[in-house]
Amino acid sequence: MEARYSIVFYFLMLLALSSAFAFPSKKQYKPCKHLVLYFHDIIYNGKNAGNATSAIVAAPDGANLTILAGQFHFGNIAVFDDPITLDNNLHSKPVGRAQGLYIYDTKNTFTSWLGFTFVLNSTDHQGTINFSGADPIMVKSRDISIVGGTGDFFMHRGIATIMTDAFEGEVYFRLRVDIKFYECW
Amino acid sequence: MEARYSIVFYFLMLLALSSAFAFPSKKQYKPCKHLVLYFHDIIYNGKNAGNATSAIVAAPDGANLTILAGQFHFGNIAVFDDPITLDNNLHSKPVGRAQGLYIYDTKNTFTSWLGFTFVLNSTDHQGTINFSGADPIMVKSRDISIVGGTGDFFMHRGIATIMTDAFEGEVYFRLRVDIKFYECW
Amino acid sequence: MEARYSIVFYFLMLLALSSAFAFPSKKQYKPCKHLVLYFHDIIYNGKNAGNATSAIVAAPDGANLTILAGQFHFGNIAVFDDPITLDNNLHSKPVGRAQGLYIYDTKNTFTSWLGFTFVLNSTDHQGTINFSGADPIMVKSRDISIVGGTGDFFMHRGIATIMTDAFEGEVYFRLRVDIKFYECW
Repeated sequence: MEARYSIVFYFLMLLALSSAFAFPSKKQYKPCKHLVLYFHDIIYNGKNAGNATSAIVAAPDGANLTILAGQFHFGNIAVFDDPITLDNNLHSKPVGRAQGLYIYDTKNTFTSWLGFTFVLNSTDHQGTINFSGADPIMVKSRDISIVGGTGDFFMHRGIATIMTDAFEGEVYFRLRVDIKFYECW
Repeated sequence: MEARYSIVFYFLMLLALSSAFAFPSKKQYKPCKHLVLYFHDIIYNGKNAGNATSAIVAAPDGANLTILAGQFHFGNIAVFDDPITLDNNLHSKPVGRAQGLYIYDTKNTFTSWLGFTFVLNSTDHQGTINFSGADPIMVKSRDISIVGGTGDFFMHRGIATIMTDAFEGEVYFRLRVDIKFYECW
Repeated sequence: MEARYSIVFYFLMLLALSSAFAFPSKKQYKPCKHLVLYFHDIIYNGKNAGNATSAIVAAPDGANLTILAGQFHFGNIAVFDDPITLDNNLHSKPVGRAQGLYIYDTKNTFTSWLGFTFVLNSTDHQGTINFSGADPIMVKSRDISIVGGTGDFFMHRGIATIMTDAFEGEVYFRLRVDIKFYECW
């Protein structure tokens, strides 16, 4: 019974957080370009060198680089080079790489700060998209800024809505990124 | 006498630096939106785990993670989750959190580079503001870029003028952030 | 003979990469402002404290802070304060400083992610320019985003095309930065 209540509580909390953090814009703008992509992150844990796509490279005092730090990972910085796919399958043919860093930056919940680039190189898209923003991980849907682009995305700006599409232990996560450009050139 | 002269010298130097670095724009634009906020940073020093809001997570060769590095802290990276307030009182009710990283990046003076987000969640403002730029700390007033926003600040861009409002030892500092949006949507 | 073939192979690879990654925009826009600058990075290697302008401050598990990490430097973060010059001579009078960080983020080739600022302070230019983007180092010419500016570059946006102009061992590199602003205010 307790477990059931705690699950209900968890969903209520998620709902509450969603409404608190989704921050929908009051005006409704229509994107001039729209893409949905997924990227897949496998964190190095000391044993998965072969298929890890990211590594912890900085940690707070007392922590190490193969185990995410204790207090909601506060103070960890990870560097990543993650495959980007068109669907939610890690084994689909990649259309590019998500490259950059994320940091865990809160002591009493899971939040991160993201600075990264999508380097797209497929028949459909050639170019880069640059992202920056806060990612309150426990919130279902959260918005970050698209601060620029190159190639097919020359000078573009917009908003990316991120959702955690899968989360397995502390090693694998998959993000769904809904890319909405409002400045297209 | 010597102390007095050195204080005078210090202020003259500040003035000189201010005029050299303030970089006022020649044209005068009027912000379409304007906010003044404060944020408060308490660096973890090995003893203040309870109320520290930031931590050193990277340091140059030979330095550690509880004492800022010797040469003007060159090479330190700190991760932070700092309360944002409407006035200069650390104990005022927070209206949001400043989250991200700062790095100390000069060997012969104090300068930093900032990548962070204001996550605002109050009755007045719901949304995020993303900042990036160089912060020549010893200069009285310095400008960084607002590269994007979400929620109430959907697609906004602007300039943030930062002033060090308080600085206590090497543990606490408070920044006054004058947020001027010139693109408002 | 073998050496000659491998050099040919190297150039062919570069050409292939160039065409794959240069991502030229389809439309041709004319910059509203255009600058070419160089910056010079000398990485601290444990012996060159006097003239080093950058330092490794984070590394993956098992690596140290005076030698770039083994697997294409994957996981290294460097903090830098590099002189900016008008020509390709390290000893020319600097017109400013390039300050920020770069991270090596791929395990099977050399790529980096850049977050940095040009702080310009000369008779010609007073202000800052903020950059963000992916840098596939082995590609001859690559584009990153100019996400904002202050002072003379108030609210500017654009594209910076980066070329490696020199590369000596693993200690010195020089980048040519072709700064093209398309939003000038």
